[in-house]
Amino acid sequence: MYNNIIDNLVKILKTLPGIGPKSAQRIMFFLLKNKKIGIDLYKSLNDIMLKINQCAMCFNFTVKDICNICSNQERINYKQICVVENPADVVAIEQTGQFSGLYFILFGCLSPIDGIKSSDINLNILENRLKKDVVKEVIIATSSTVEGEITSNYIAGICKNYNITVSRIAYGIPVGSEIESIDFNTLSYSIIRRYKINF
Amino acid sequence: MYNNIIDNLVKILKTLPGIGPKSAQRIMFFLLKNKKIGIDLYKSLNDIMLKINQCAMCFNFTVKDICNICSNQERINYKQICVVENPADVVAIEQTGQFSGLYFILFGCLSPIDGIKSSDINLNILENRLKKDVVKEVIIATSSTVEGEITSNYIAGICKNYNITVSRIAYGIPVGSEIESIDFNTLSYSIIRRYKINF
Repeated sequence: MYNNIIDNLVKILKTLPGIGPKSAQRIMFFLLKNKKIGIDLYKSLNDIMLKINQCAMCFNFTVKDICNICSNQERINYKQICVVENPADVVAIEQTGQFSGLYFILFGCLSPIDGIKSSDINLNILENRLKKDVVKEVIIATSSTVEGEITSNYIAGICKNYNITVSRIAYGIPVGSEIESIDFNTLSYSIIRRYKINF
Repeated sequence: MYNNIIDNLVKILKTLPGIGPKSAQRIMFFLLKNKKIGIDLYKSLNDIMLKINQCAMCFNFTVKDICNICSNQERINYKQICVVENPADVVAIEQTGQFSGLYFILFGCLSPIDGIKSSDINLNILENRLKKDVVKEVIIATSSTVEGEITSNYIAGICKNYNITVSRIAYGIPVGSEIESIDFNTLSYSIIRRYKINF
C-alpha cells in the first residue's frame, strides 16, 4: 500500500514470532517516528549477524568458540549435562539457580509425525559426546509433550547403553495453582510421584 | 544474562510497541536461528533509515519530497483535506476507498493534561496551509477520545475563521455489533444522528 521499502519492512516483521500484520504495521510506523531506535536495532542486528555463532560443545549462541558455561571449570567438574530443546530453555533453567552443570541443546525434538529423526536434531552428536566424555548424570529437560517424551525416552536409551545415570525433570502441580483447576494427567503424576515429608 | 550483544538486541526489541520481555527474547532466538531473516531485516532497516523521509505537504512517510497522494492531480482537484493523527490512520482510511482527497497528518493530538499545544503537533502548519490553499472541505478524522475532540474543535475553529466547510467523521454503532453490547455514549450518538431511510 505504501511503497516497496516500507512494505518490505512490514513483510519481514510479520515473519517474526508473535507479530501479526497489525503489529508489524505499528512497529514500522514506530521505527519511522523513532529513527534513533531504528538505527540502534540496525546496529544491533549487524553485531548479532557478524559476531554470534554457536558453541562447539552445547550449541548455544555465543561470541566465543566455546560458551561461558561450557568453558567454566567449576561447572565441568559437576559432570552433569542437562539436555534441552532450545536456548530459551537454558535461560529459564539458569534463572532458577538450581543447576550448576553443563547444557546440551538439541534444537528440536524427535517427531515421527513430522518425520524428524535423531540425525535432524543434535541427538547423534549428543550420543558421541556421551560415548567419549566422563558424564555422571544426564538430566533430561525436554518438554512434557508427546514429542518431548519420545525424545526423552531416546536419550534415556543412549544413557543406559553407556551406563550413565539419567533423570527427567519432575512432573507435578505448578506452584501457586489450585488443585481443582489442574488437568487430570498432571494431577495423576503429582500423586504417583508424591514425596515423603520428613520431620 | 547472555552477553552484551544479545542483551542489547533484546533491550532494543523491548522498546518496540507491543513487545514485552518474553516476546523480545523469543524474537531474538528466532533471529539467531533464522539468520536469513535477520539479514533481511537489517537490510530493510538500512533502506528505511536512508531513503524514507516525510512528505512536505501532508507529513506522511515517503521516498519522495511530495508523496504519491499529495502529488496526484486528480486528488488535488477534489480540494478536500482529511486531517488525521497518524500515518496508520491514512492506511486505514485509504483501505475504505471512501475518500479521494488529500490528507494532513498531525502526529498527535492536543492534550491540556500532557501539555501538548498546537505548536507541538502540526496544527500551526495546518492553519498556514488552510490560509493560503483553496480548500473546499476539511474532514476531521481524529480519534473519538477527549484529546481527539479537543483537537477537532480547534481545527473547526480555524476552518470557521477562513470560511472553509468542515466535517467530522460520524459517531455511531460499529457495523456487526449487537445493540445491547454498545456503550451508552455511542448509542446516544447513533440515535441523535439517525438518518432518514429513503424509499
